[in-house]
Amino acid sequence: MPDPEADRLDALHAVLKSGSVVKATRMLNALHPSEMAHVLQSLPPQQRKVVWGMVDDEVEGEVLLYLNDDLRDELLRDMAPSRILAALDGLETDDLADLVQDLPATITREVLSSLDEQRRERLETALAFPEDTAGGLMNTDMVTVRPEVTLDVVMRYLRRLKEGLPDLTDNLIVVNRQGRYLGVLYLTDLITNDPDDSVAEVMTLQVQPMVATLDARDVASRFEHLDLVSAPVVDEDGQVLGRVTVDDVMDLIREEAEHQFMGQAGLSETEDMFAPVLLSARRRALWLGVNLLTAFLAAWVIGRFEATIQQVVALAVLMPVVASMGGIAGTQTLTLAIRGIALGHLSATNMRWLLGKELAVSLINSAAWALVVAAIAWLWFGSIDLALIIAVAITINLLAATISGALLPLLLDRLGIDPALAGGVILTTVTDVVGFLAFLGLATLFLL
Amino acid sequence: MPDPEADRLDALHAVLKSGSVVKATRMLNALHPSEMAHVLQSLPPQQRKVVWGMVDDEVEGEVLLYLNDDLRDELLRDMAPSRILAALDGLETDDLADLVQDLPATITREVLSSLDEQRRERLETALAFPEDTAGGLMNTDMVTVRPEVTLDVVMRYLRRLKEGLPDLTDNLIVVNRQGRYLGVLYLTDLITNDPDDSVAEVMTLQVQPMVATLDARDVASRFEHLDLVSAPVVDEDGQVLGRVTVDDVMDLIREEAEHQFMGQAGLSETEDMFAPVLLSARRRALWLGVNLLTAFLAAWVIGRFEATIQQVVALAVLMPVVASMGGIAGTQTLTLAIRGIALGHLSATNMRWLLGKELAVSLINSAAWALVVAAIAWLWFGSIDLALIIAVAITINLLAATISGALLPLLLDRLGIDPALAGGVILTTVTDVVGFLAFLGLATLFLL
Repeated sequence: MPDPEADRLDALHAVLKSGSVVKATRMLNALHPSEMAHVLQSLPPQQRKVVWGMVDDEVEGEVLLYLNDDLRDELLRDMAPSRILAALDGLETDDLADLVQDLPATITREVLSSLDEQRRERLETALAFPEDTAGGLMNTDMVTVRPEVTLDVVMRYLRRLKEGLPDLTDNLIVVNRQGRYLGVLYLTDLITNDPDDSVAEVMTLQVQPMVATLDARDVASRFEHLDLVSAPVVDEDGQVLGRVTVDDVMDLIREEAEHQFMGQAGLSETEDMFAPVLLSARRRALWLGVNLLTAFLAAWVIGRFEATIQQVVALAVLMPVVASMGGIAGTQTLTLAIRGIALGHLSATNMRWLLGKELAVSLINSAAWALVVAAIAWLWFGSIDLALIIAVAITINLLAATISGALLPLLLDRLGIDPALAGGVILTTVTDVVGFLAFLGLATLFLL
Repeated sequence: MPDPEADRLDALHAVLKSGSVVKATRMLNALHPSEMAHVLQSLPPQQRKVVWGMVDDEVEGEVLLYLNDDLRDELLRDMAPSRILAALDGLETDDLADLVQDLPATITREVLSSLDEQRRERLETALAFPEDTAGGLMNTDMVTVRPEVTLDVVMRYLRRLKEGLPDLTDNLIVVNRQGRYLGVLYLTDLITNDPDDSVAEVMTLQVQPMVATLDARDVASRFEHLDLVSAPVVDEDGQVLGRVTVDDVMDLIREEAEHQFMGQAGLSETEDMFAPVLLSARRRALWLGVNLLTAFLAAWVIGRFEATIQQVVALAVLMPVVASMGGIAGTQTLTLAIRGIALGHLSATNMRWLLGKELAVSLINSAAWALVVAAIAWLWFGSIDLALIIAVAITINLLAATISGALLPLLLDRLGIDPALAGGVILTTVTDVVGFLAFLGLATLFLL
């Protein structure tokens, strides 16, 4: 039995290609909004406009939600304000908050004035916290209960709820008369305990609520460590504001990971694979420019040694080897350190230990590989002096690479610069400059 | 109100440093097993052994579960077989299956023979599927119900369950007399509907069960798209085998992401930041060696043009600029394509479109930056010929970089080679070789 989801997507792609609009529309609208978003994201721009036109009006809002920022902005730009308002109607508050942040100010005002008072208040609460905090992630749709009522009363109350329980509700939040957090009542406990028991007897006290200002990264690690489905969010006074649910945490983990991975190539995690050529070109140009500066700095260093190279051309042949070995070794240490910081395993406390270990690793490897490179250089150019010089230069560069790779992430983090974005460029600059300087410098001193 | 979890971890680190064993033991054992694992992972080897000795015997199994593979293997190696058996006692079947795969065969046999028949059967089922499939991820602890009973009967049945409901149960699996999958009964529906309704009336039919052989990546994307907490797993005949839960999916997303990120630096995602020096050195040595081959290939290309360089030393100064621009542009395309494949957005169908777009981006950027580089080269060395040659070489290298960056991931994927691991090295080889060849080759033809 093959995967039915993948099959449906493939079938849709085939129908789109065949140009049968009616059939494609029917197939498309049988999909979950997240799957529609997936289809849109794997289509080139021309087909996207066509397919977006096929999406039923009432799910447009949800589809927008699942798109990456770039594509979402592009589609929103082409939508009339009235159509945007219609699309946003019926979204949950936290989802609405996510979308509203990307809208032009005029539309945001219209959205706010179109809501009833309770929803407007909830939306404003959600918008009050930065996106990368528990408050920014939270959903204000939740069910709270009081500790003194019996489970039977809770069950009867839930049966009367018109709109049903919010998605991903695994527990009800127990609050006192003032709305302060007391604990949670798991649905499983509600079901398996005596209906005459009180909430207070059955509720769980061990679940720590998250303060709204808690960093999103800490929220994610708490969900991962404690296997949570949902967690209550409170303000500084313990007043319950909403809850974070595991679906948003999964998205967060995915985005964080994309950010790390894409950032190393100077790309944004929101980069749309099929973005318009000019937009992509402009964004990439900046990164090429930054790296060009680095490359010219390295070229300038080489330029200082033109006279030396003219006399010993072998230096020009071998110098990229010295720079590249440093780059590779440094990137390994850098990657380890960036991950260590992201997972919370690395801090100033154990930094010295990591540096010591990485230096030891680096010494062993530079000793081993410097010998190999020296042997090859000797066989190739027949100069024992050149062989010695390249061995020493590689050792120097590997040590410099290791030190920068280990220290850069913490340093950049402290300065508020994203190590995943800037770490690689700075490291390459160091290994190129140190590599060329050490090799050509030593050669000038001892070969001429 | 600061984050209480982070505070407790910091406090523990401080007490460990102060050397107060009794206090540290007490604080450590107040933590969740996942938090203990986190503490262990952020400690250097010497302290790890001490802290591992402090962990209460009955949670050792769970702590092992949360450790990365490297550290887990290291601790298991030092444990007596009897202690391992004790630690594994009481773990859930899917967790046991994860651990057992890392144990020496003799201990696995002892574990299997120490289990009662039902658990042994379940463990064998779990071990029968590869780790990266729905079957490998699944948990066999679940509650199934029959469609014809009433909700009231289900509730009474659940109240009698001695061990309570398994963790992360958001629905009960509805099966027919033969154990075939029919649908799921959400706990929220169980609670909010009339107790006299039958399961058949209230159950949800839309939830597609996952076939045990479904690829883990597809499992994750289904959880992300449909915001699932748990999903039933069936065999080819629709017989229910178990269920996948969101905690394991979160771990999977994290691991997949780590694999991509670490792989680019030739590191394994299980790499332990504080692994022993010799182990790390040996692993890294291999990667340095592979990259050294690449570097010497580039050096060999340069070596073919020694005579040219001797006459025009400026070539040696500028050649790293040509190679590095290609490397940067190619890495960007490579990164986009690797992510596209991982997310399922990129396939052979839309590959041609991506290649076309990336080539267009690349042409625009190479035109722009080639001009800048040419202008600098002209100002620096005063040769219009040299300026023209470097502009053409950069354009050639950027186009080669883009083509390899776009095509490599799909090609490697087809060949069963991991693009996240091998893509970068191969790309750099291409951009170095093409860059040096184009620049020095053109110079030999037109400058001499």
